[in-house]
Amino acid sequence: MKFELTVLGCGSAVPTSVRNSAAQVLNVLERHFLIDCAEATQLQLRRFHIPYTKINHIFISHLHGDHFLGLFGLLSTLSLQNRKGEIHLYADERLKKILDFQFGIMNMKLSYTLVFHALSRKQELLYEDDLLTVESFPLKHRYDAPASGFLFREKERLRTIRRDMVDAWEVPIAFMQNIKRGEDFVTKDGRVVANRQLTLPAPAPRSYAYMSDTVYREEFAEYVRGVDLLYHEATYGRGFAHLAKETFHSTAEQAAMLAKKADVGKLLLGHFSSRYPTSELLLDEAIAIFSNTFVCHDGDVFDVPYKKI
Amino acid sequence: MKFELTVLGCGSAVPTSVRNSAAQVLNVLERHFLIDCAEATQLQLRRFHIPYTKINHIFISHLHGDHFLGLFGLLSTLSLQNRKGEIHLYADERLKKILDFQFGIMNMKLSYTLVFHALSRKQELLYEDDLLTVESFPLKHRYDAPASGFLFREKERLRTIRRDMVDAWEVPIAFMQNIKRGEDFVTKDGRVVANRQLTLPAPAPRSYAYMSDTVYREEFAEYVRGVDLLYHEATYGRGFAHLAKETFHSTAEQAAMLAKKADVGKLLLGHFSSRYPTSELLLDEAIAIFSNTFVCHDGDVFDVPYKKI
Repeated sequence: MKFELTVLGCGSAVPTSVRNSAAQVLNVLERHFLIDCAEATQLQLRRFHIPYTKINHIFISHLHGDHFLGLFGLLSTLSLQNRKGEIHLYADERLKKILDFQFGIMNMKLSYTLVFHALSRKQELLYEDDLLTVESFPLKHRYDAPASGFLFREKERLRTIRRDMVDAWEVPIAFMQNIKRGEDFVTKDGRVVANRQLTLPAPAPRSYAYMSDTVYREEFAEYVRGVDLLYHEATYGRGFAHLAKETFHSTAEQAAMLAKKADVGKLLLGHFSSRYPTSELLLDEAIAIFSNTFVCHDGDVFDVPYKKI
Repeated sequence: MKFELTVLGCGSAVPTSVRNSAAQVLNVLERHFLIDCAEATQLQLRRFHIPYTKINHIFISHLHGDHFLGLFGLLSTLSLQNRKGEIHLYADERLKKILDFQFGIMNMKLSYTLVFHALSRKQELLYEDDLLTVESFPLKHRYDAPASGFLFREKERLRTIRRDMVDAWEVPIAFMQNIKRGEDFVTKDGRVVANRQLTLPAPAPRSYAYMSDTVYREEFAEYVRGVDLLYHEATYGRGFAHLAKETFHSTAEQAAMLAKKADVGKLLLGHFSSRYPTSELLLDEAIAIFSNTFVCHDGDVFDVPYKKI
């Protein structure tokens, strides 16, 4: 039961020879969600063997080039490969204008239906199916490029049947769904078997949140409280805190403060400025505040396992 | 005296793990000309160590995504690096509309002046300095994406002084420019020294032509007659000649026919369909018609040497 994040690019505005700009794929039980889509994302998808023809949902945090310029190429390639059905795109409404204008001039007809969902800039539910939900929430970035965070959360699952016990109590098949939902079982002779004798608790729902690009705001912790995995931008280290402020970015320390405040399970740092050839310094600064911190490299895969019960 | 082509991408519409889409840099005596600019061109420039901050002139053949989608990222990166001066962009006039619209919505202010030159779709001079000229000429591609070829040609150079001879005849410095231009020298006592005694011929001007994307048209040979190096698209092999026709592309054989007809020095094939994991087959088909044919790989460098006199 996968819940797995692949980092396609952990660089920022200017890509480097080792870091592409922002893009990630979250695989939740074989649903593949693309989060941001910098230039060359289609190449990174191929490089890291992500089955990108299975991507149905694309989430764009904001309209800076290093978060969306790969969209044109990816959408075009999917069309050249004669992709059918729907692709859902969640982004600033102005992205639709850009796509319509460019595809119009290029006389581009897509082979599939591109369904555009404009982000409202309020906390909102973007997507829901039987297994998970995706929400967005407002971040604070440059005034002309309002940014959104995204929260992916599994739904509560049904309890797990203990095969040995339901066999021993001869529970009929027809009752199983009720048992999974937590009901007790009553035998023919009226004896009540407590549900906890027949089932194990369901694993806790897993969750992932993406916060990039944004300044640090203590109150944003509420959006991502208790998530298992948090990706937070950490464009700069302490030495360039003034630049972080000027450019509406966060430092590694601020990312760690947010993670601590929100009591998340694990923190991932990314969106590193090209000033940092390696990310050790940023990791050191964050770890001092929130110990379960990791830095991203392009191609890194982070698994979110079920918590041990 | 460099005249050197670096292939940044020799793939076609869909990039592969080994072939990026179309882009090249021609270095003529340390002037760097970018020809087409597919997605990820800025990454390829970095990968192949091209000093892309020195690029002042960008030529876009036509408005299909695999020839221009990297422009936004490259122009943006150059601006983030605080590039000054002018960058000249030569392309279909509709590209200016796309750039203006997108940069407008993104509130993007470039650090340099982007000078746009709309291609006229006639044979025309695009650029000229003391050493070379760049011309464009019309190709035949899909009706909604008219394509242009580009021809880079060195100017005639002055004859080379034979130091030993001008010393022997005691030619004054003031006369040297006239001697280089081919004039004879008259000594104080009226003796005429023939110019060919004092100089060697200048090396013949070198030339490079780029033809992509286009169908085969015999008459296009006139545009590139006698060039030293011709790059011609060869999207398909003979087996997919019907697809070449349908999609307004050329086969490897047609590229070779054009090279032969135009009596060029060397032919480079590129813009290979992703159907061809390797290009041997395409090379074989072309070589049977025009023997001095080579296939491109990303990163290949082709030098155009002076002809031996």
